[in-house]
Amino acid sequence: MALNPQYEDIGKGFVQQYYSIFDDPANRANVVNFYSATESFMTFEGHQIQGAPKILEKVQSLSFQKITRVITTVDSQPTFDGGVLINVLGRLQTDDDQPHAYIQTFVLKPVGVSFFVQHDIFRLALHDV
Amino acid sequence: MALNPQYEDIGKGFVQQYYSIFDDPANRANVVNFYSATESFMTFEGHQIQGAPKILEKVQSLSFQKITRVITTVDSQPTFDGGVLINVLGRLQTDDDQPHAYIQTFVLKPVGVSFFVQHDIFRLALHDV
Repeated sequence: MALNPQYEDIGKGFVQQYYSIFDDPANRANVVNFYSATESFMTFEGHQIQGAPKILEKVQSLSFQKITRVITTVDSQPTFDGGVLINVLGRLQTDDDQPHAYIQTFVLKPVGVSFFVQHDIFRLALHDV
Repeated sequence: MALNPQYEDIGKGFVQQYYSIFDDPANRANVVNFYSATESFMTFEGHQIQGAPKILEKVQSLSFQKITRVITTVDSQPTFDGGVLINVLGRLQTDDDQPHAYIQTFVLKPVGVSFFVQHDIFRLALHDV
């Protein structure tokens, strides 16, 4: 049991860093560096993949270029292995689409003095109303 | 590294079981049994508390009685300690309030043949539009 007391700053800092790379079309593929070759899960709109190579494929398959993103809330909790659980609620607009609310959950796993993304779940908040 | 291959069923089963207790005003306080006395975190609308006694206080302080809930999606991933990360997107209406979208993330931690809720983050999806 080794809680990281900096979990709040780590969560907010990670979210800012991750999206600054993801939201730049020329740089987007570099988010793969946040993931482990084998020990990372991504669930993107219900489709689950594992490992950095498949995550890179997924990121490169996204057809939009421009993203306009507004973060509404970032909630972080320390995990008991020294990592951080992060819940992001926001709104995003890709190219000329409608803006949509979305949620994204990350679990950062500590490795040495840094972290990798062990879990990543993304969903647009589309409800049948 | 011990992934639980049943993570999908565990996630869906847990969500159903948890909300069936939470959504019953006469039974709501019993959700405390899902949490550990010390090793559970809850972040409720940005307010973070730790441990079953404080979580029970929080649950008992909720002023609404009736909840009408519709689950939109449940995304689960296996965690590397044999637990399950669960992301719920849904809509809920308390008493006569407006219905709101919400997100809730749980991390189930295995203990013997069962699980407890180690992490719980809840947010109504209220955006400044």
